[in-house]
Amino acid sequence: MSGYTKQITSLITEVRNKKPLIHNITNYVTVNDCANIILAIGASPIMADDINEAGDITSISSALVINIGTLNKRTVESMILSGKKANEKGIPVIFDPVGAGASKLRNEVTKTILDEVKINVLRGNLSEIAYIAGLNATTKGVDASEADIESNDSTAVAKKAAVKLGCIVALTGAVDVISDGKNLVTISNGHKMLSDVTGTGCMTTALVGSFCGAERDYFKAAVAGVAVMGIAGELAYEAAGHKGTGSYHIAIIDSISKMDENIFGEKARINEN
Amino acid sequence: MSGYTKQITSLITEVRNKKPLIHNITNYVTVNDCANIILAIGASPIMADDINEAGDITSISSALVINIGTLNKRTVESMILSGKKANEKGIPVIFDPVGAGASKLRNEVTKTILDEVKINVLRGNLSEIAYIAGLNATTKGVDASEADIESNDSTAVAKKAAVKLGCIVALTGAVDVISDGKNLVTISNGHKMLSDVTGTGCMTTALVGSFCGAERDYFKAAVAGVAVMGIAGELAYEAAGHKGTGSYHIAIIDSISKMDENIFGEKARINEN
Amino acid sequence: MSGYTKQITSLITEVRNKKPLIHNITNYVTVNDCANIILAIGASPIMADDINEAGDITSISSALVINIGTLNKRTVESMILSGKKANEKGIPVIFDPVGAGASKLRNEVTKTILDEVKINVLRGNLSEIAYIAGLNATTKGVDASEADIESNDSTAVAKKAAVKLGCIVALTGAVDVISDGKNLVTISNGHKMLSDVTGTGCMTTALVGSFCGAERDYFKAAVAGVAVMGIAGELAYEAAGHKGTGSYHIAIIDSISKMDENIFGEKARINEN
Repeated sequence: MSGYTKQITSLITEVRNKKPLIHNITNYVTVNDCANIILAIGASPIMADDINEAGDITSISSALVINIGTLNKRTVESMILSGKKANEKGIPVIFDPVGAGASKLRNEVTKTILDEVKINVLRGNLSEIAYIAGLNATTKGVDASEADIESNDSTAVAKKAAVKLGCIVALTGAVDVISDGKNLVTISNGHKMLSDVTGTGCMTTALVGSFCGAERDYFKAAVAGVAVMGIAGELAYEAAGHKGTGSYHIAIIDSISKMDENIFGEKARINEN
Repeated sequence: MSGYTKQITSLITEVRNKKPLIHNITNYVTVNDCANIILAIGASPIMADDINEAGDITSISSALVINIGTLNKRTVESMILSGKKANEKGIPVIFDPVGAGASKLRNEVTKTILDEVKINVLRGNLSEIAYIAGLNATTKGVDASEADIESNDSTAVAKKAAVKLGCIVALTGAVDVISDGKNLVTISNGHKMLSDVTGTGCMTTALVGSFCGAERDYFKAAVAGVAVMGIAGELAYEAAGHKGTGSYHIAIIDSISKMDENIFGEKARINEN
Repeated sequence: MSGYTKQITSLITEVRNKKPLIHNITNYVTVNDCANIILAIGASPIMADDINEAGDITSISSALVINIGTLNKRTVESMILSGKKANEKGIPVIFDPVGAGASKLRNEVTKTILDEVKINVLRGNLSEIAYIAGLNATTKGVDASEADIESNDSTAVAKKAAVKLGCIVALTGAVDVISDGKNLVTISNGHKMLSDVTGTGCMTTALVGSFCGAERDYFKAAVAGVAVMGIAGELAYEAAGHKGTGSYHIAIIDSISKMDENIFGEKARINEN
């Protein structure tokens, strides 16, 4: 295990010891899985999207996760208010721009959030990040489009977005890329079956949020969150891939709940570039 | 395998090859299962219910699924806007009138949707379809009432509703009936344990939507969607029925994710009448 | 089995025979599990939160469950309207004050609901009930805080809250306490892994609602609902605890769906005080 992987590995214990409270303003499709994933890695989830309490809840939390998967006017206002409160208090903000590029509303809301809130980590797929970076992107719904995957180099896209936004970008795909515009780490964990379960992207974002709630080096936290999901995707495939996507879904959560430094250290394929 | 069943069987491959994007404006109780079922059969789900993007999302989709399980004023407006957009673009609309007959609001909304949107496939249980057909119905909540099951002939109800509405009706129950008012197909697959899991009706509707996104003959698409759920209900019972309803729920998704032409062709009990 | 446990045990059959319709105005994080748990114990769930139908749906139901886990202005109005309708019709109201003490909004809404609606059973954790009883509480998010657990005697807290509110209080934790201010029952079932799955509190409340829909003695109904979840937590641990929290979650639902008088009678550890 490299020295860098060792540093990341220690975060598994850190999050379990600190049990940070993670405030999520997220979508109603994958919210249950996000809450269970946050518990599985040892953090504590709270979901609260009413504007009359969003700021209060952010204030008592160790990280804020914003996800626009099923955005609407009411919740977007809460996202912005909570984002500003988090900025004010020095609480990390993790943003998942689900489906950015797929509709005018998602594009506008993405822009507004990026303009009004200082994001610490942006977690998305290639189509979403390419769209945000101002590159050609052909988002089809909420999954990365194949045209985008073929025509773009994800390391270049992640780096460009990170420079443009001045934040850490976690671009997940066949190979995951984490960049702050200067440093770049790739992670070769994961399994293609992860895309057969809804919300594995959202869950990855929730994991990044969990680690950011326990570790002030958000770059390392992002690497840890993304790597944990990749490893869980592999372990779940071994345990239940043959049964089908329902069992695979459950085995992802199982694998995360059983993740420890030994498993992580043995399985992580993290490369500093 | 009959010639008709063979035609339906080929749709299993068709949906997996085409991966149609399915826009769902649906309820928050079963939305995660619906997304996972759509992925399991090989299509791609998107859930978007804000009026400022509903039309845009419908426009890039291959089918629209409307489900009033947890209706509210805000989302009903989006359903109607998206329905009209789908009609304009020739995109099929599948409507699940969850709980029609159970409250004045559901009745009014059902009427409004049927008045304002041309529905291609209506998928419901006996109480819901009987209510819509203008027959005596005693809807008790969101499940078909036993009084309705005893006093109504589901083939007659499906046919009457199809004639009245000028659309395809998929009435699911112990025996499923698909009718366009003229043609009628019954499907004898399924298992009574399906009613012990919430949302198997919604999931069936999502499957019908997935097939309608891949096949322009919506009657065949409806037969395929309903039959796939019935077969999955049987296979899941064999795999996990003895464990309880939680495992059975997961096994339904497993079975759909592993559905192929061989399994479908062997198990389907589709009867042309 | 004591005489008292025997009386409670018989409710398992009663709820399965009566299949009461349970109206839930609840949160979108755990709503699917609540619906499946209600089905698993033999009752019938309906989720309806629009103010234009909430009263109608309550009127045809046998119990109303209110849960403020993801409260917002729109749904809180429906909770109050439905609560008043239930009071008027003599339908039991079960209230889960998720996160009471964690934000000003939750505190205000909790107060409003308690002022405007006659609650039959209040189900919460130690932090929530202590807050409502007017005791020192340090709610951190939606889980009971460790400071509260160490500094409070849960039997005293439950009793105090019950006297103050004039209702039955079901305070769940390592040992569960049910009190109406005069009578007090403790239940020693359960497993600590229950707190690793989101929504086991909400599910307990849904079970209490299911039993209240079948049994007019709401104290006994509350004991039954809480004990069923505790027993399921133990059985699920035996069946799947070693696999991880995803499988444990599913096994909880399995165990409830297979619960019968024999299992309940053998496992229940209910103590009259």
